Amino acid sequence: VARFPLEPGATIGVLGGGQLGRMLALAAARLGFDVAILSPEPDACAARVAARAIVADYDDPDALEALSRIAEVVTFEFENVPAKVVARLQGLGVEVAPGPRALAVAQDRVDEKTFLRGCRVPTVDFVAVSKPRDVVAAIDKLGAPALLKTRREGYDGKGQTWIECHADAEAAFARIGGVPAIVEARADFVRELSVIAARGRGGDIRTYPLGENHHEGGVLRRTSAPAAVIAAVTAEAETIAARILTQLDYVGVIGVELFELRGGRLLVNEFAPRVHNSGHWTLDGCEVDQFEQHIRAVAGWPLGPTAPLAHVEMENLLGDDVLRWEALAQEEEARVWLYGKGEARPGRKMGHVNRLRPLDRN
Amino acid sequence: VARFPLEPGATIGVLGGGQLGRMLALAAARLGFDVAILSPEPDACAARVAARAIVADYDDPDALEALSRIAEVVTFEFENVPAKVVARLQGLGVEVAPGPRALAVAQDRVDEKTFLRGCRVPTVDFVAVSKPRDVVAAIDKLGAPALLKTRREGYDGKGQTWIECHADAEAAFARIGGVPAIVEARADFVRELSVIAARGRGGDIRTYPLGENHHEGGVLRRTSAPAAVIAAVTAEAETIAARILTQLDYVGVIGVELFELRGGRLLVNEFAPRVHNSGHWTLDGCEVDQFEQHIRAVAGWPLGPTAPLAHVEMENLLGDDVLRWEALAQEEEARVWLYGKGEARPGRKMGHVNRLRPLDRN
Repeated sequence: VARFPLEPGATIGVLGGGQLGRMLALAAARLGFDVAILSPEPDACAARVAARAIVADYDDPDALEALSRIAEVVTFEFENVPAKVVARLQGLGVEVAPGPRALAVAQDRVDEKTFLRGCRVPTVDFVAVSKPRDVVAAIDKLGAPALLKTRREGYDGKGQTWIECHADAEAAFARIGGVPAIVEARADFVRELSVIAARGRGGDIRTYPLGENHHEGGVLRRTSAPAAVIAAVTAEAETIAARILTQLDYVGVIGVELFELRGGRLLVNEFAPRVHNSGHWTLDGCEVDQFEQHIRAVAGWPLGPTAPLAHVEMENLLGDDVLRWEALAQEEEARVWLYGKGEARPGRKMGHVNRLRPLDRN
Repeated sequence: VARFPLEPGATIGVLGGGQLGRMLALAAARLGFDVAILSPEPDACAARVAARAIVADYDDPDALEALSRIAEVVTFEFENVPAKVVARLQGLGVEVAPGPRALAVAQDRVDEKTFLRGCRVPTVDFVAVSKPRDVVAAIDKLGAPALLKTRREGYDGKGQTWIECHADAEAAFARIGGVPAIVEARADFVRELSVIAARGRGGDIRTYPLGENHHEGGVLRRTSAPAAVIAAVTAEAETIAARILTQLDYVGVIGVELFELRGGRLLVNEFAPRVHNSGHWTLDGCEVDQFEQHIRAVAGWPLGPTAPLAHVEMENLLGDDVLRWEALAQEEEARVWLYGKGEARPGRKMGHVNRLRPLDRN
């Protein structure tokens, strides 16, 4: 059983071999930890900066056993880690952070919103549906247009569709495959914000300044941070993050997506129990970025400062965007992060760029 | 033959598996490069964050051949790379940066000072010695006390001794093993500074703000940067760095150790053709740190900005100092860098800590 704070030299396991795992591994290395990546993908981009790599399916019993022998604590870079994987690791005596409760809640959109309402966190109105006539009834209640999403899986706009009008309800349900789903009322928001926060093993909480997010085709395109918001909005976001983290007895970094309504009221869209794309600005904008913060939390170290050092415009490099690397390398203000992925498939997250400017020009 | 700028996804070879190689590997990963570490040490701390590791002696022909097959360009973390290793790599069609000229000059203290004088860079007075009576004659010329150093090898105060008085000359020569050496006049300096600079493949040069260094027992203990110096001193240091870099047709980061005399005149003590311990403050004090700068240079990318974002007090963690990690982790202003080395032998560089404060409180 791990003793916290984890000593430098200990190994931290990470489920997932993508860019989030890669940046977690780089942060862990700075603090003297070794990282073991478990990923089904051979030569995963995270594995190429990690001390150890296990190439296997996430639910492979031998792989989990091997991971449990070398890792003092295990974390993950994606929220769809199967519950049985976490249970097996825990059964092998390994700490998993964030814990199974956070994962379970985040993996089901109805459970997530029900949980949020239970801790007095506002969300859009919603109805759980599992049959075509449920969807019709949901539109009767919530009005159209409304958003239909699968309860489970789905990210970056996948597994969701707009119900344009009452007559579209059944067709929309067919479009997402007729699986258990949620209908969400349209939020009349003025912009999308997000808050990245962390909770340590001692219950301490730190919150980063808000980011303002711009999506294209359901995928995050740009984050501007610190977002220009009034103090009351920051305070409300911090309260929301703290309620979620505390109620889940959470350990690690969380990303909470917010809708800002006219007048500054916030609704939670969803949260991700992991480091978050909209927090990549912290890599160059803060002393302790979200990746080091997450490692600090899961290792039982004290959390670090979250004050901004610069204003950052983060731009995702999707697919062919990465071919612009040579021009980006010449931009004086642009800090370039490339993930070492091979093929630049359309929409694939290949890297990001943080463009810095002094805070006082904000 | 490598084409520059090097494309992301290319592999950069690094000779040496210590902390400098490790931090170079972390910087290279941010830019999407893979790193291959060649080091005789199994499980070297740099290898544990690198895509590939070759465990072999530096002059092992098979190892160099293997490295040449995967790496587009090779750099190094220590200046005592044998000339024949560089020649062999070049013979295999691999670019080595910085090049053999910089290495040759930096490997011999007499050649180094002769080179510096040749490019109008001031140094202490010196005399080359190879026999006991040469040392006596040197003291006749330079006076005592004077510093006797082996021409080759030696770092962190090793391979050198003070000649306390005329009568001590022959004994001092015996103390350093009676090998070819240099006698250096004592510099009457008020403090030790250093300048970290870089030169790109296009000849562009960037210089970081000066650091003020404090040594203990011949080993760097602390660097404070940006150092409080008058503008003329900064300008003089930049001129010195530019002369050295240009004369050597240098590619990469260089660390130049300086003595500041009363009145602000500078003498060069020595330079290291690599990233330098006194530049570790840039990891948290600048947008582009010395490690990314070095990778940018050897990869043929444009150099990045060197303006300071914060004032940094860098403290080396030597030997048992690293056992203070838990207290350091709790210091709000302290950014902790631990190197993942196993045994905390006395004096071994185990990590460093950068303590930040805002620039305007300087």
